[in-house]
Amino acid sequence: MQLTELYEQVIAGNFRALARAISLVENEMPGYGQFLQELTFTRFTPVIGITGPPGAGKSSLVNALVGTLLAQKAKIAILAIDPTSPFNYGALLGDRIRLAQHFNNPDVYIRSMATRGSLGGLSDKIIEVTDVVRNAPFDYIFIETVGVGQSEVEIAGLADTTIVVMVPEAGDEIQTMKSGIMEIADIFAVNKADRDSADAFARNLGKMLHEKPAAAWNVPVIKTIANKNEGIEELLAQIQKHTQINQLNPKKAFLLAQKALQLIQKQRMKDIDRIGLKNQIAQLLAQNRHFNLYRFIEKYYT
Amino acid sequence: MQLTELYEQVIAGNFRALARAISLVENEMPGYGQFLQELTFTRFTPVIGITGPPGAGKSSLVNALVGTLLAQKAKIAILAIDPTSPFNYGALLGDRIRLAQHFNNPDVYIRSMATRGSLGGLSDKIIEVTDVVRNAPFDYIFIETVGVGQSEVEIAGLADTTIVVMVPEAGDEIQTMKSGIMEIADIFAVNKADRDSADAFARNLGKMLHEKPAAAWNVPVIKTIANKNEGIEELLAQIQKHTQINQLNPKKAFLLAQKALQLIQKQRMKDIDRIGLKNQIAQLLAQNRHFNLYRFIEKYYT
Repeated sequence: MQLTELYEQVIAGNFRALARAISLVENEMPGYGQFLQELTFTRFTPVIGITGPPGAGKSSLVNALVGTLLAQKAKIAILAIDPTSPFNYGALLGDRIRLAQHFNNPDVYIRSMATRGSLGGLSDKIIEVTDVVRNAPFDYIFIETVGVGQSEVEIAGLADTTIVVMVPEAGDEIQTMKSGIMEIADIFAVNKADRDSADAFARNLGKMLHEKPAAAWNVPVIKTIANKNEGIEELLAQIQKHTQINQLNPKKAFLLAQKALQLIQKQRMKDIDRIGLKNQIAQLLAQNRHFNLYRFIEKYYT
Repeated sequence: MQLTELYEQVIAGNFRALARAISLVENEMPGYGQFLQELTFTRFTPVIGITGPPGAGKSSLVNALVGTLLAQKAKIAILAIDPTSPFNYGALLGDRIRLAQHFNNPDVYIRSMATRGSLGGLSDKIIEVTDVVRNAPFDYIFIETVGVGQSEVEIAGLADTTIVVMVPEAGDEIQTMKSGIMEIADIFAVNKADRDSADAFARNLGKMLHEKPAAAWNVPVIKTIANKNEGIEELLAQIQKHTQINQLNPKKAFLLAQKALQLIQKQRMKDIDRIGLKNQIAQLLAQNRHFNLYRFIEKYYT
């Protein structure tokens, strides 16, 4: 299949073509660069990032949101970031089973992506893959992170709306809250809100948020019980309200600039024959004890 | 001071100039690239890498070796890699105190370098710093690693002679030996050899080594008790024997090729105005929902 044809089928909503296009980009198969350059981004699909600590109920929440949106005849894509670490497999399997009820729904596309060793972060292909999905006819794209390491910072750059899922912890303290999490949340979901401490927790969270200077968007705190479908409609209303204000995400420029540098770097290193370089250095070392690496590489500077 | 003058003083053995030169390179101060390109490597100073698990007695062994070498009127440089992690400070302080008896000796130069977050590895400047030290008039350069993570692999590329320090563990099993450690050792030191299990441990280690195909150099296993100065002369004799055979270390080419790529990459990215790029992307995003990053960066490809 030609790249142009593949792209046309992605735009038309063919899931099989979308899966192929994602694999093309994720695995850097021949033509992936050209394919990315052809993306037109004619539609605007809100990207909803879901993050929060492990065990907060992110998957259950996505599951509940998707169920409600499907009832509204929406088309949904879910990108689930899977940690490569074997320590998480158990929890993960449970998460995916929860999502399984939507697996065969023709209005839901689910793709899981490995973090590929970028410890706790998102996959290093997540920006490209999201860009591919943004060209397919979905109404919402959900990205669910593993909620550890750098993933919060990255999701905040990638998503148009970032939901931070919390659980009411022992007491009403928010001491354990990771620094930086206040800054990235567009919406807080206090899940498992049937716990005793939920009200106090949500109240304190709201107080902390009000201490910040007033902004164009006031970060709401929504109590949810994902597996009982409680609070989901309210959460959805806030998501839809936030995607409407449609303001530019300042973190997105930073994330894309980083990605741009990464791509330029890769391209600029392409013409270097790594094996040749290694052999040449080995030879020079064998011949010459006075070998100066710093002088040797000067010829590669462009 | 001019760079040329600084370099002349390094060659002449001025410790203060050496310290300045190392700082120049370690902190990438103006002129550091030029300084590195001026290194002539007229002398050959063997670089002795000391690695092994934490608590094996690496610092005590270096201390004992240095004491013996000083009695032979040798001049020594010690590069000690310090983990940046706060978890290791206690142990580290003890190690450094052990070395302190040599601190004021005019024939010993001691420099400690932080790992700088490259988790458990060597400092990312260790190759450059070692190259600077190799131009000063020392008879031996010792590099002591923290003995965790990647440091063994890196030290094996950097050192002319790699000593792996082990302690006889419970029983005579060498089950816990990290994979890869057999490949990097030029000499094994079984330290704390006054433990009951030492003989069996050293014997088994020797057996494992003999199972490998015969090579130009047979890896010796030396029993030492560093803090009683036992086995040190024998260890030193093996070090001197190994530095005499003077064969090319095949891992060195690999390590230097990696470093070369890293340096070339850095140089090639120098002309990109990162802040400008970020602002430009932010502007394009604000103006244009259809912004295609992959097309945008094409102009940066050289």
